[in-house]
Amino acid sequence: MHAIKGLIIDLDGTVFRGDELIEGTREAINEAIDMGKQIVFLSNRGNISREVARRRLSEVGIDVTTQQIILTSSVAAAFLQDHYPKSQVWVLGEEGLIDELRLASVTIAQEPQDADWVVISLHEKVNYEHLNQAFTAVRYGARILATNADRTFPRHDGDAIDVAGMIGAITNSTGKHVDLVVGKPSWLMAEAAMQQLQLPPEQCLMIGDSLETDMAFGRMFGMKTMLVLTGSTNQAAADSCLRRPDYIVDSLANLHQVLTR
Amino acid sequence: MHAIKGLIIDLDGTVFRGDELIEGTREAINEAIDMGKQIVFLSNRGNISREVARRRLSEVGIDVTTQQIILTSSVAAAFLQDHYPKSQVWVLGEEGLIDELRLASVTIAQEPQDADWVVISLHEKVNYEHLNQAFTAVRYGARILATNADRTFPRHDGDAIDVAGMIGAITNSTGKHVDLVVGKPSWLMAEAAMQQLQLPPEQCLMIGDSLETDMAFGRMFGMKTMLVLTGSTNQAAADSCLRRPDYIVDSLANLHQVLTR
Repeated sequence: MHAIKGLIIDLDGTVFRGDELIEGTREAINEAIDMGKQIVFLSNRGNISREVARRRLSEVGIDVTTQQIILTSSVAAAFLQDHYPKSQVWVLGEEGLIDELRLASVTIAQEPQDADWVVISLHEKVNYEHLNQAFTAVRYGARILATNADRTFPRHDGDAIDVAGMIGAITNSTGKHVDLVVGKPSWLMAEAAMQQLQLPPEQCLMIGDSLETDMAFGRMFGMKTMLVLTGSTNQAAADSCLRRPDYIVDSLANLHQVLTR
Repeated sequence: MHAIKGLIIDLDGTVFRGDELIEGTREAINEAIDMGKQIVFLSNRGNISREVARRRLSEVGIDVTTQQIILTSSVAAAFLQDHYPKSQVWVLGEEGLIDELRLASVTIAQEPQDADWVVISLHEKVNYEHLNQAFTAVRYGARILATNADRTFPRHDGDAIDVAGMIGAITNSTGKHVDLVVGKPSWLMAEAAMQQLQLPPEQCLMIGDSLETDMAFGRMFGMKTMLVLTGSTNQAAADSCLRRPDYIVDSLANLHQVLTR
């Protein structure tokens, strides 16, 4: 495993479970940094900004720069700024997403009717008027970009409705489809990670808890893959999956064993 | 037209436009009643109770009994009580729907996890927690019944997101489908109307503003059909429709001309 120079690490279910740091992950990550591994965190979270994620990591003793954090909020913002710099955007989502769009100088529409794009993300404070504004924007011709299309996320009281719910409200009422999903396993997330790490994919290890997003992502882009069982995948699902990750470990706390094999 | 003894009249877009009574409809309806025609109002509204609809009609000078008002809220409640009397129901919808379910002695579940059915209707005060509760119920195995599946309804500020939005949030996040849509043009609504009128369909005139719900409904069940242009269908759409209603008139105010032809 000496060939592994870069680690791409998922956040929810891999580093955090809800608001709690998963035991042993801080030590494992800091040890890898001490070993000279390059690190980037890559999450399908679209409802927070990188700065919020950076502070959250720092509070639990993991110190990285915002450049080392890649979220679908920031990648969506960069995509829109790169490819649609003149477009106006309406957000069905939270403040963290708006922060990243503003940082990337994306124009936020004043009225739904003016929007060229509706950007949909998790919105835990969503209400009828928010849905109706996004609906109106799409009815007036806005295209739909989703930060991710996850159906559920783990909340303190169990799995909760995720971005797929917000998407379905808009697509089912307008008859339109999502034009682009930014999240893993998309090429947009891969390019963002590769650009930050400046390493060829075969020298990277993708670490995450999801077979469908994290492991598919790593595999598609030619990275090594390491599945952790602290999140959405249990041992039975890992054992029965059709395309086995390179490594299956209980937790990110086992990272050292993989890196020193 | 002497064969017409019963009138089945849609409400939104036919009698009311938003909160306003459409000009001439009170006089037309009361004249038909004076002519001895039997009347039933039949609406895909699932978010109000018949009693609320009765009072609303009474306030504008149209006096009927609650038995003469058939809504998807009341038909959904009767369906569940008739066919699933032991089941528990979770509501993603408004107080009027809950009122009708209670009137029909349908059991409202205490927790989403206990529900056998989720009943979805328009919910203009919907928020994230409401969506998450219905999502949880479906994840625990509840089936989905929708009062109707309309995409939009006319609101004071334009077309607004309707039940299809609430449905899409739940189906897209759970991967489940709607098991039953109660609204026109369903047989459930036809049976409810026929049972109230006690007339054969060919002696009934279906009056409404929608080609897809009202006119399809009347045609499918062998009624005469009269399209009004005060709601969702304009003259151009009426002219180009593939299956022409029996009568196309500007407004319900023209009812007398049709009845005396």
